[in-house]
Formats: sequence, structure tokens, C-alpha cells
Amino acid sequence: MIPLKYSIGILQYIPFFYVIWSDDLLSVSEISVVKNAIGEDLSLNTGEKKQLEGWLIREKSPSEQEFKYWKQLISTSGIKLVESDTYPLSSLSQRLGNAYCEDCDFNNQLKHIEINLGIQPNHYNHLFDVEVVHKKSSNHYNAKKLDAILKGGHVKEVDTFRVFLDQPNFAWDVVRDKSEFRNKVLQQVQLLGQEGYGAMGYEKVYGGTNNMPAYAAIFEHLMFVDGSLAVKFGVQFGLFGGSIQKLGTKKHHDKYLKAAGEAQLLGCFAMTETGHGSNVRGIKTTATYDSGSDSIVIHTPGKNDNKEYIGNALHSKMASVFAQLIVNGKNEGVHAILVPLRDENHQELEGITIKDNGYKLGLNGVDNGKIWFDQVRVPRANLLDKYGEINDDGTYSSHIKNPNKRFFTMLGTLVGGRICVARGALGGAKMALSIAIKYALNRRQFNDNVKIQEDLIMDYPTHQLRLTPAVASTYVYHFVLEEMMQRYSDDAVPDKRQVETQVAGLKSVITWFANQTIQECREACGGKGYLLENRIADLKGDVDIFTTFEGDNTVLLQLAAKGVLSDFKAEFNSAGFTSVLKLLGSQLADKLSTLNPIYANKVDSEHLYNLKFHQHAFDYRTRRLTYTLAMRIRNYIKKGIPSYQAFLKVQTHLVTLGKAYSIELAYQVFTAQYEKESDETYKALLEKLGTLFALHHMREDAQWFLEQGYISGTKSKAIRQRVERLSTELRPHLEVLVDGFGIPKHCLSAPIAQ
Amino acid sequence: MIPLKYSIGILQYIPFFYVIWSDDLLSVSEISVVKNAIGEDLSLNTGEKKQLEGWLIREKSPSEQEFKYWKQLISTSGIKLVESDTYPLSSLSQRLGNAYCEDCDFNNQLKHIEINLGIQPNHYNHLFDVEVVHKKSSNHYNAKKLDAILKGGHVKEVDTFRVFLDQPNFAWDVVRDKSEFRNKVLQQVQLLGQEGYGAMGYEKVYGGTNNMPAYAAIFEHLMFVDGSLAVKFGVQFGLFGGSIQKLGTKKHHDKYLKAAGEAQLLGCFAMTETGHGSNVRGIKTTATYDSGSDSIVIHTPGKNDNKEYIGNALHSKMASVFAQLIVNGKNEGVHAILVPLRDENHQELEGITIKDNGYKLGLNGVDNGKIWFDQVRVPRANLLDKYGEINDDGTYSSHIKNPNKRFFTMLGTLVGGRICVARGALGGAKMALSIAIKYALNRRQFNDNVKIQEDLIMDYPTHQLRLTPAVASTYVYHFVLEEMMQRYSDDAVPDKRQVETQVAGLKSVITWFANQTIQECREACGGKGYLLENRIADLKGDVDIFTTFEGDNTVLLQLAAKGVLSDFKAEFNSAGFTSVLKLLGSQLADKLSTLNPIYANKVDSEHLYNLKFHQHAFDYRTRRLTYTLAMRIRNYIKKGIPSYQAFLKVQTHLVTLGKAYSIELAYQVFTAQYEKESDETYKALLEKLGTLFALHHMREDAQWFLEQGYISGTKSKAIRQRVERLSTELRPHLEVLVDGFGIPKHCLSAPIAQ
Repeated sequence: MIPLKYSIGILQYIPFFYVIWSDDLLSVSEISVVKNAIGEDLSLNTGEKKQLEGWLIREKSPSEQEFKYWKQLISTSGIKLVESDTYPLSSLSQRLGNAYCEDCDFNNQLKHIEINLGIQPNHYNHLFDVEVVHKKSSNHYNAKKLDAILKGGHVKEVDTFRVFLDQPNFAWDVVRDKSEFRNKVLQQVQLLGQEGYGAMGYEKVYGGTNNMPAYAAIFEHLMFVDGSLAVKFGVQFGLFGGSIQKLGTKKHHDKYLKAAGEAQLLGCFAMTETGHGSNVRGIKTTATYDSGSDSIVIHTPGKNDNKEYIGNALHSKMASVFAQLIVNGKNEGVHAILVPLRDENHQELEGITIKDNGYKLGLNGVDNGKIWFDQVRVPRANLLDKYGEINDDGTYSSHIKNPNKRFFTMLGTLVGGRICVARGALGGAKMALSIAIKYALNRRQFNDNVKIQEDLIMDYPTHQLRLTPAVASTYVYHFVLEEMMQRYSDDAVPDKRQVETQVAGLKSVITWFANQTIQECREACGGKGYLLENRIADLKGDVDIFTTFEGDNTVLLQLAAKGVLSDFKAEFNSAGFTSVLKLLGSQLADKLSTLNPIYANKVDSEHLYNLKFHQHAFDYRTRRLTYTLAMRIRNYIKKGIPSYQAFLKVQTHLVTLGKAYSIELAYQVFTAQYEKESDETYKALLEKLGTLFALHHMREDAQWFLEQGYISGTKSKAIRQRVERLSTELRPHLEVLVDGFGIPKHCLSAPIAQ
Repeated sequence: MIPLKYSIGILQYIPFFYVIWSDDLLSVSEISVVKNAIGEDLSLNTGEKKQLEGWLIREKSPSEQEFKYWKQLISTSGIKLVESDTYPLSSLSQRLGNAYCEDCDFNNQLKHIEINLGIQPNHYNHLFDVEVVHKKSSNHYNAKKLDAILKGGHVKEVDTFRVFLDQPNFAWDVVRDKSEFRNKVLQQVQLLGQEGYGAMGYEKVYGGTNNMPAYAAIFEHLMFVDGSLAVKFGVQFGLFGGSIQKLGTKKHHDKYLKAAGEAQLLGCFAMTETGHGSNVRGIKTTATYDSGSDSIVIHTPGKNDNKEYIGNALHSKMASVFAQLIVNGKNEGVHAILVPLRDENHQELEGITIKDNGYKLGLNGVDNGKIWFDQVRVPRANLLDKYGEINDDGTYSSHIKNPNKRFFTMLGTLVGGRICVARGALGGAKMALSIAIKYALNRRQFNDNVKIQEDLIMDYPTHQLRLTPAVASTYVYHFVLEEMMQRYSDDAVPDKRQVETQVAGLKSVITWFANQTIQECREACGGKGYLLENRIADLKGDVDIFTTFEGDNTVLLQLAAKGVLSDFKAEFNSAGFTSVLKLLGSQLADKLSTLNPIYANKVDSEHLYNLKFHQHAFDYRTRRLTYTLAMRIRNYIKKGIPSYQAFLKVQTHLVTLGKAYSIELAYQVFTAQYEKESDETYKALLEKLGTLFALHHMREDAQWFLEQGYISGTKSKAIRQRVERLSTELRPHLEVLVDGFGIPKHCLSAPIAQ
């Protein structure tokens, strides 16, 4: 022990000042926390307070000599940090005080500082001798509680389902041969159908509970079992059954829906053609009404007009076939028709040819195939005629007169599938993150040559930065998709156009997010992540195609952006588009110049952690991108460039807007949702996750905000530092956070996750 | 035809002004090109010149009325654009002139403008009626010539090898069962060994040609056949054979090298352990010298100390085992020892246990396994003793006294493997890009409802932006890896430390680049990209692990950054580190302030396309990151934080520096290389590819340059526009550019690439 040059009152503060000045992140809020505590400390006299406050001036850090003395004071005292203490730093301070003065009282103000600074032992444990190896995880939060929050209104359904999945039929295994794999998955789908899980989204009379939100939660859980199961399940019950439910009428429901929901009637959804994927309107298959025989003739006219990648094609007895409906020589546009494919012996019916699509990057338990129709005749009643019917007199009629609107209304009914795709991708991300984080909390590599034990890789800043923002985003997207499914299935709002635009964007950003996250997790697990047994590899292969199916992401983002543009136009319809653009332009310019330079330079943590700042930034970005997009299109059109070409010229701008809009929306929905959480501890945790999500996204797009002058270079750096800091702060809670995803033990089979 | 309000002289310029003003990209250089041409046009009188120049003022665009008149003038004339014309726009102008004045001369100045503006028909074809559907590709460049440039000095070897690969043994097929797949790949490896390809890097006396650069070119080609083949080939000849060649001495070479090179002696490289991957120095396997029997005892001491992921483990007869060498009770550090694994009947020898690692995400044709040693005894001569030997008297000696340096010297000899890994990944990217681009030049989707034909997806700006910068980067990285292999195999430079640092960084950025590119290509091909038959799926699975093996990318980037730091320290060693830091800090600050605001705001194309600008930007970034990193570490160390902890605190900074350094290096090497190209046409093309690479990277990291004030917001936007524009400009040459990769037809088997 070295001689003490301070009073005991001062001494107890030394470890805090030592921690504070060892990093350069002393923010205004931190100074005020410490200042207040000192001000209210009755054990200090005026001189002591003055001395302590002198060490709180940001511009004038304590001298190196002083700092070294602090270090020596602590190290020579032999006092060690006990990380498992409730207040590790305060406790260390107290023991330090005791070392110099046996009967001194403990200074309770220190706890106040420790709580309010929000610093964790992993911020500063390298500064002290540590008593024991610090714990892998904190139990400050409870995973069960987080799980309950995420389950929301589906506690009963989800809990029952998790127990149901705990049977050998759903155990994961490597199955390389596609027929064998497909048969295994088929049996799983049939089991789920028998148990009533397939029909959950249908009405009660057809075996369901009319509960799409719970259906989506179940669907996500299937990803924990196997991606192929989730997709085949979605095709059978969501797409095939869903097309009957949404596009058909009572006669179809009565005849087919129960059997489809029980997987008694296996069916597929035959929309995509070899030549037409994204441009569904351009499909070539024809469905020609023949009044003589009162039947519809389904036909594949040419090469590349066959149906392709049709899931369930090899097992199906029937298909919902999308085709150009021709009645009395007039093309009435794309409609869906139920077409039987095979007989009782599973032989293809006359005129039907089905071929296997072969092996794929993933999802090899799903039987994708190609289908050709050669003048296949079905009864008129097989037309799914909710939005367009052929009457008894052989004429066509529809209550939606505009064929354009009719087409998009039909497609709009299938938006639920897009939400499920995003939900499934998110389930994949949850699984990968759970595995990677559990591994990183066991895997050790490298040390400082002094310690016996190597360091946990989860303690590496690069590793924290790699995985923590993804955990935060997963929480945000979970809330958002829950809410979207609620809106989609809310019968009180029949017009689903807004949800459609929103889901188009969210499906894109979330499926991309999931793929990137799974990739990060694979790399974060090194060679272990590459082995099939550790499950990440399959997730990577399976989730990959989620960016393409049910709408290619790049196409969907343009759709989302066009939706934003329409709203923008509609918003100002009365005032006249051009004058509004001018007005808005000057408003945006004003806003920007008044913000500058104070706002653009604000870097204190109160500001950076304030959700109003995040919302403002996201809102500003969407508005600005919308405005500049509208201006560019207007200029092109004024010059006589056709609108199709004008939209091509701004295509990358559209994609950028689509993404920006989706991120803003996600954050908006999330913040509105977590506000409802009644437990303040968890509300604060969710807020922190939201903050990390928001700052991480601002950092990802910092280029744009900087270009606009919305943030200064200093602020951009401060945001980056805050992302790193939040990632470190959440480190002790990572295990609880991924356990909160609620993946059942029997699904989390990866050896490295044990 | 509408009445003409201009002279014929003016009229001929109208199509040009129409094109120029239809976009808002009129740069200073473009104005001057047009101005010069007008000035030198003898056919114009002063009044005409004045009128034309009036339309060239950037701030004062022609009135909308004027612009519309131009449009009408052209459209009512019935003149169409013929894109296949040599000078499409000039030719259109001439015909427009003829429509109003039959015997007018052609104005040759127009051609001058057309060449110098560098605009392509695909920039403006939407503005005119087009005579014929424009061609998919231009034949301005020749793929064979590009291929020859890329083959460099290995024309003979590569050409021979391509022909050799054209046999059924190397035909691609789906093989799902791992034993079957492994056997197929084993036979391929043996075939290559017999033909002398395995030994290429060895000296002539052992069957080789001592030509590592040609070996690397061959290795890359194996990726076109199958990723598993490339990896198994690399393990057998590069790692196993390479360890004998580089770490052994003549007695080992004479005994084993020829057999290894012919794949008569199958071997593996047993370095990684379950518990130790990145931290090789910490491996636990022991090799204890027993002087009594004059032998070395190899032993796996505990759980997780077994060798793992060892490629070729199931087929091998022998292993190069890395272990802690203990002589007379002293640990002399990690050394390699040749250990026989199996007898002639392929039965494991006593004390050896080998288990299959099972199925992986990719590379299932490679037999990875785990190996345990239970007191396995081998003769003393089996120690690969180039850098450390056990003498006849049973003592250890080495000509490298420092054990640290000894260890890194041994590892350094294996750098060739890292170059090959990067080369292989790049081969994967080449293959994926070739497939995706050929598909995009056939696949059509969507149109403007007027045209019969839908648009080629390659004509979508988003698609161009997605693939074109990747093509440019592939060219850059190809040159860089060629050069790195030259430097590595240059015996005149025995100290390979610099190459090692450089390769550590390049391996990381290139393998990440390859993975991202393959992913983009998969998505760009939609569902077709997901089918195994189209080859991208396997590339994705195979190349994925390249980011991990032969050094985890995140770890390697830190290594690269530490190398940069050392150089930085050495550079100023005499002057004293601290004072140099201060000096440099003020220099950097000066440099920055003198640059501002003129430099930071410079947006004309001459500047943005100037390689000096790119080099300056990259150099500035590396220097600044190095300087700030050094300062941060110094501050931590001054505060008494141990160096290991200080480096942890700056870990993300290290990774950033590692990347920045590698990008700068790549561009530096590339620019130095293409300068040597004698054909000016191709030199200009390479320069354009380099420019796209540079601007694309500046755009990717624009956040950083903006934060530093190195570029202004306006300049950042200008860079983005230039990236998009260059991507569009290269559109007609994309097919030739990917054909230039020289992937043989028999390897490019994907149905969508036909």
C-alpha cells in the first residue's frame, strides 16, 4: 500500500474517476450524474467537493501523474474487483476505503452513481485485478419474461405447439436424398394438418380458429424444426388452402377447405412460370371458357410458359392454377382455377405433365416441380370466382370493373403469405443468433499470455458488434411482424392497400436482414458453423430463397416506394402537385438550415438515445427521398420521357426509398408497441434495443445523413461509438436475450449450442 | 415533319443537345468537348455558333418549350436510331439533316463529340424511336484478348489445362452422398497428380516446374470444375506436399515429395484442433522427444485437443502434424512432424483414431475428419526440421533463436496457400458473374406495355449496379493476386514478412468480396439461381468457408493492421515515436484544411476519373486510420492499460484499417500493372474498370470520407452518380468482360448460362 494523499471521503470516489477517465466517453449526462451525487453527499466537506469537481472538467482531464497514482493506489491495496457483487464498483470502493480506514462508513452515494452511469463490469474489468472469472451472463433479466412478451396474445397456442413439437417425428436429422427428405416432410405436414394446425387461419366451420396471428407464430416455429417443413406447410395451408379461402366462394370452401386444412387434399399454388416470375400479370397459361361444354380449358401455349418451382407439385392431387381467363374471346386477366392433377393412384391425369425441379441450394425437403397443361378441361365451377365469375349464360362479370384493380385485389389477398415469409426468415435469424451466441459464450481463443484461461470470443468487441445489433433488430422486427399480421387480419379494415405496401417493404428488409445475420452467425462460429449438425448451414441454404419467392426483394421495394409516392401525391391532391412540391422543397430546406449547426452537432447521450431524434431522422430521410424522387420523375415527364422510362431512370432511388420507408415504419411500430409494456425494467430494455436498432441503422446509412448535412462528421462518429458502446453494454444480457426468443430445447439441437 | 426554325447547321446538333439536356449530368468536361467542336466547326457561321453556345450554359438550361420542339422535330421526321451504327447519334443527326436538306454534307465534327462524350446508345436509346432491337452486346472488345491479358505469363499452362479438363472425369454432376462424392473427387485429384499438375510448385527433380504462379492459375480453374476438387487438391499438394517442401529438408524431399506430388502418397495437414483454430500457437498436441528410443511421441492430451476439420483425413496415409515439440523437458514451440496414419490396407495404425466430420454446408467432396493420437511413436527423422532440429546428441537447435520469430517464419512459408484461397474464391466469383450476366442477357421481365418484347433484366439500372462493380473488382483482384504470387515466389526476396501482411488483408477482402458477389448473383438469377444445376448454389456453399479457413478474416485483418502499424513505427524509428505522431498529426490536419473546400467539392469528371484522386483518397484514409490508431493505443498505454487490453479496445479500428489498407494496396498494384498493357484500347478499358473499382469503394466507405471532411456531400453524391453511370456505360461490354475470364465452355455447364 502506498501513502494516501487524499481524505477517505475522496478516496472512495477514486475507483470511479479512474474508470471514468480511462475511457474518453465522458458525456454531459455522465458529468451531471457524478456532480449531483457529489453535491448531495453529506459525508464530504466543501473542500473535498471542490477537489472532486475539479476532476470533472471535460476539457481538462486529470494529469497523467494523478491518473497513475490512482492506478497504484488501487493495485497496491490488493483490493480486487468481484464482478458478481450487486454493485461491483461501489463495493470495490468501500473495500478500498476500509483498507485505509477500518471503521469508515460505506458511502451510499456511490451506488447512485454506479446505477446511473449504467456502466457494466465488462466496461472496466480490465482496469482491475479480478477476484473470480466473471460470469458468462447476468441474470438481471429473465428469459421467460422476454419470451412471454414476444408471445404476446398467443401464449396458449405457442406453448401447446412447443410441447407438440417435442416428438421424434420432428427431430432434426441429415437427410441427403431428396425423395426420402420429401417423404419425411410430407409426413410432418400431414401430422400438423391432422392436429388442426394447418387450418388455424380458416374459419371454425372449416376446422380452424380464424386466427392468422397465431398461425404466423406457429409458422415461425416450424423454422426451428426445419426450413423445408415451414415452406411445405406454407404452400399446402397458406397458398393452396389460402387461395381457396380468399379467392373462392362458399361452394369451394364447402367442398375443399376442410380437406385442404387437414392435408387430406394435397394441393399446390401454380402461379410462377419459367418465363414469368416477378411479372405475374404477363403469365401465358390460358384458361379458355368453352360454352359448348360449359367447361374451362387450361393450356400451356409455348416453351417457357409452363409452371415452374411449384412447391408440393410432386405430392399434390390438385392445383390452384393462375391463368389468363378468356371468355367469349376476351381476355379478362389473370384468375385462379382449381385443376385436378392426379388420380387416386397418384397417376397424372390426361394432359398433365409434371417434372421434378431437382436439387436446390436448400429446402430439399420441398418437392418443387414444373407443370404443363395440354388442353386440360375442368368444370366452370372450378373457377375461384370471388372477384370474377362466369355466369350461367356464359358471360363474364365482376364487381370490380377495373381489370387492373381486380388483379391487384386478388394478389392483395395473398399478403398474409408475405408476412409469413418474413416471419419465417426472422425465425431463421433467431435460431442462428441463439446458436452463435451460445457458442461464443463457451468458445475461448487467445489471451494476454498472463491469464491461464483464454478469452471468451463473446468478449471481443468485433464479435459483440457483429451479433448484438442483429439481436436488437430481431426484437424490433418481431414486434413489427406481429403488428402487421394483426392489421392484415383485422376485418374492420377491408382495404388492405396500405398493409400491402408496408409488407412489401418489410418483407424485403427483413429477409435480407435474416440472410445477413445467418451469414454473420456462420462466420462467427468459424468451422463449427459450417457443419450441418450445427444447423446454421441449413438455415443459410433454406432462408436464402426467401429474398426471391413471394416477390423478389428488389421488385417489392419498388412497389413499396411507389406506394409511398402515391400517398405523397394523395396527401396534397387538392393543392396541386407542382405547387406542393415547391412548398415542400422550401420547407425541407428551411428545416435543414434551422437544424444546422446545433442539431447536426449534438452528440450528448441524452440526445443520441432519445427516440424523438431517431424518429425525426428516419422521418426526415423518408420525406426527403420522396420529395427528391417526385421532383426527378416530374422533370423527366415534363421533358416528355414516358413514365415507364422515367421510373427506370430513378430505379435505384426507388429502392433506396423503399428501404428507408421500411426502416422508419419498423421503428415506428416497435416504439408504439413497447410503450405498452407495463414492467418498467423490461420496457427500458426494449427501449435500449430500439435505440441500438435506430443508431445502428443511422450508422449503416450515415453516408446519406452526412451528404444531406443532417448530421455532422462529429455526430456520425459519436453514433458509431454509441453503437459499439451499446453492444458492449448488452453483452452480459445476450444469453437471456436469445433465450427470450423461446426456441424449445428440443429444436435447439446444435451440439455447439449446448 | 414540322417547320424548321433553325439552319441546317444548327439542326445537325439538335439530337446532341437533346441527349445532353435529357439528363442532368452535363459536366465541365462535357461542356468543353461540345464547345471545342463547335468552335472548330467550319460549316457554322458566327451567329450559329453563338446560338449553339447559348444552349451550353449549365445554370441556364434551354426552356421546356425549346426542348419539346427538339423532341417533336426528331419524332415527326420519322428518323430512327440505329444502335448498330458505328456512330449512332451522329448518323441519326446526318439523316435528320438530310430529311430537311437533301444534298447537305455530313458534319464530321459530330463524330468528334460523340467519341469524346463517351456516351453509349443505352444512355439515350429511350429518347428515340429505335430501328431494330438493340444488340445484347457490343463487339467493341474481344474476349480472347482480355483472356490473354488475364492469363499473363501462363498462356501455355492454362490453355493446356483447359483442354485437359475437357473430359468426362471432370464433368459436373449432382452427387449427394458424401462417400460417393469423395471418391469421385479423389479420383480427380489422382488424375491431376499423375498428369504432373499437383507438383507444379515443386522443384523439377521432384516432378515439378517450380512455377507457383502457374500453379495458382491452375488452382483457380479447379473452382470451375468443383469447389471440393480445388480444396482437396490444395490440401494434398499445397498443404501436405507444401509442408514437406517448405518445412522439411532434403531427406524429406527425397523420400516423400515426388510421391506426394503424384498423389501416390495421400496426406493431410493436421494443424487445427477442436479447441484451437485461429490461435495456432496455443495448440495442445504434444510431440515429445524420447532420447532412449530416439523417437518422437505424438499425443493428444485432452478433450478438444484432437485435430479437427482435417481435409483428406479419411483418404490419407500420412499427416503433417503440428504439435508442441518438447525436447529434454523444454517446450521448443510448434513444429511439424510426419506421422503415418494408416497401413497398406487402409487400417488406422496403433494409437491413431480418425472420425468423419460429417456433412457440411458445402465441399462435401472433401473428407474432413478429426484425428486423435494416443502416444504414437515416430522416428526422430520425421521431424520437418528446416527451422528447428533435434541433433544426434538429442539436443534441440535452430538457426532462428527467437522462438516467436521461428514460429512466424514457419507459418510464413504457408502464405502461398492463402493466396490460392483468395484465388479460388475469385474463381468462384468469376463463375457466378459469368452465369448471372449471361442469364441477365437472355432473361426478360416487364415492359412498358407498348413494346411487344419485355426488357432484358440486364438493362435495369438496379441490375447493372448490382453486377457491374463486381465485374470491375474481379479484374482488379485478379491482377493483384497474380502479382502477390509473383512476389511470394520471388527467391530474390527471402524476407516474406511484407507479402505476408499484404496477403493477410487481401485474402480477407477478396474472400468476403467473392461471397457477397456470389450471393448477389444468386439473387440476380432469382429462383433459377437456387437450382443446383445452375452451379451458383454450390459456389455459395463451397466458397463460404474460404472466409474462415487458412485464417479467419477478422483475425487476419487485425494481423494486417498490426503489420501496417509496425511499418509506421519503423518508418519514424529514428525520430522518436511520440514526436513523430505529433508532427504527423499537424501535417494531416494541414493537408485537410488546405484541401478544403475546393478539393472536397471538386465534382467534374476529369477529377473524379483521375487515378491520382483515387490514390490520394485511399492513401489519405490509410494514413489517417494508422495515425489515429497509433494515437489511441499510445494513450491507453500511457494510462497503464496493458497492451493486450489496449489492442482489444481498438479492435474494430484495427479491422477498419486492415480493410482500408488492402483496398489501397489492390488499387495500387492494379494501376501499376495495367499501365504495362501496350494496346491502348484495352489499357483504357482496364483504366475504366479500375476507376469503377475505386469510385465504388469510395462510395461504400463514403461515410468515413464525409466524416473526415475529405469529401463534401455534393462530391459524395457525384461519386454515387458516377458509379451508376460507369455501370451503365459498361453494360454493352459486360458479356465480353465475363467471357474474358476465360471459363471453358465445358465448365460453364449451367443451363441458364447457355
